[in-house]
Amino acid sequence: MPSNPTPSPRPAVVLLSGGLDSATTLAIAREEGFACHALSFDYGQRHRVELEAAKLVATHLGVASHTWVTIDLRTFGQSALTSSIDVPKDRDEADMTHGIPVTYVPARNTIFLSYALALAEVRHSTDIFIGVNAVDYSGYPDCRPEYIDAFERMANLATRAGVEGQTLRIHRPLIDWTKTRIIQRGLDLGVDYGLTHSCYDPAPGSAPGNASGTRLSAKPCGHCDSCLIRIRAFAELGRVDPATV
Amino acid sequence: MPSNPTPSPRPAVVLLSGGLDSATTLAIAREEGFACHALSFDYGQRHRVELEAAKLVATHLGVASHTWVTIDLRTFGQSALTSSIDVPKDRDEADMTHGIPVTYVPARNTIFLSYALALAEVRHSTDIFIGVNAVDYSGYPDCRPEYIDAFERMANLATRAGVEGQTLRIHRPLIDWTKTRIIQRGLDLGVDYGLTHSCYDPAPGSAPGNASGTRLSAKPCGHCDSCLIRIRAFAELGRVDPATV
Repeated sequence: MPSNPTPSPRPAVVLLSGGLDSATTLAIAREEGFACHALSFDYGQRHRVELEAAKLVATHLGVASHTWVTIDLRTFGQSALTSSIDVPKDRDEADMTHGIPVTYVPARNTIFLSYALALAEVRHSTDIFIGVNAVDYSGYPDCRPEYIDAFERMANLATRAGVEGQTLRIHRPLIDWTKTRIIQRGLDLGVDYGLTHSCYDPAPGSAPGNASGTRLSAKPCGHCDSCLIRIRAFAELGRVDPATV
Repeated sequence: MPSNPTPSPRPAVVLLSGGLDSATTLAIAREEGFACHALSFDYGQRHRVELEAAKLVATHLGVASHTWVTIDLRTFGQSALTSSIDVPKDRDEADMTHGIPVTYVPARNTIFLSYALALAEVRHSTDIFIGVNAVDYSGYPDCRPEYIDAFERMANLATRAGVEGQTLRIHRPLIDWTKTRIIQRGLDLGVDYGLTHSCYDPAPGSAPGNASGTRLSAKPCGHCDSCLIRIRAFAELGRVDPATV
């Protein structure tokens, strides 16, 4: 008697930076049953250890493919993430949430999502996952739900899938979650956060250990907004952040 | 007595491929009084002579700056413009307007406009010009007015300008113009179409002359959709296309 064939999992494109949020998003997309095609960018970021982290996370969680795109956002300058502007340190929460941060990169999420749209079309996928969060990064215009909704509407008019009557979805599972909720969900799904890297201004030197014994080649600073947010969230959960201790 | 200072022209970003439509669009943006920042892409296109044409057109019409971005859309394959699929030849108009052409590149205009959005932010511009046309290329999803409208809505939510209450406009002056109207408008504005290149499948060899005596390094094939459309339009105006004779 022939066994019932298992249906092929549906393909999804997952934007993977190597940070805590995108690692959790990848784990969620997998849990929802998607075959995940990871998409990562080398965009001249100062925190290039992020690229190592993206590779480790993709291997750790298991992806169907991993596409790398090199783009030079430095052409457009004007962000602390891609130029010589200082990354702010040891700010309190009020400062973090005031205005558009200097770490904002012009149109970054729009460019990233546009490439994701191209990859989705090639992979015959109508599902894109992005780990944007409007709680901790309220100052970034392109992390707000109304922005993601508008991108989704545009995407459904831009491509073959939309013209042929399929509906393309931009999944943003973390958008209104607190950092503690994000971390708790990831821990429940088995994410090893020691493999992730979120620091905007890493220092040379080996990062602390993680469950698989792998080391990243740079240490998080522990003082930029991104480090402080995750350290505090792990502490609220009664844990120590495995990447920033 | 001090003379009245001339107000600085407002900056605009103009997508410039080196083809007939984008050259006309640049001429229109200039005529409207904008200081034009041209943006061109090396995206692994087979018709790379287009890049030479973009440089010549930018010089000919005068731009405030010209930014080049190299992106590898070949990663995403699947178009006759970036892979080894044959470019269709000698098709009649009914064939040209049926379905999505094989020369469609997944999400190309979305990626191009996303970079334009980044450049606009850096140049403190709220005006982007694109030479899309929904008449001759009705099969491309990302040349339709509803797509451009949706991109504009998204763009106003994506960037600093939108958050700070400015309105970003995606100008698409040619969107519903026939090719003859586009060419007539360009001729009225002094565009030298001998500098432009629109062919999808150029052959090696020197292109015909133009008013400035400059030669492009490849000849248009005269048989792809793009060549046929412009040759016919020039003929309707009682002229010979200076680029494709």
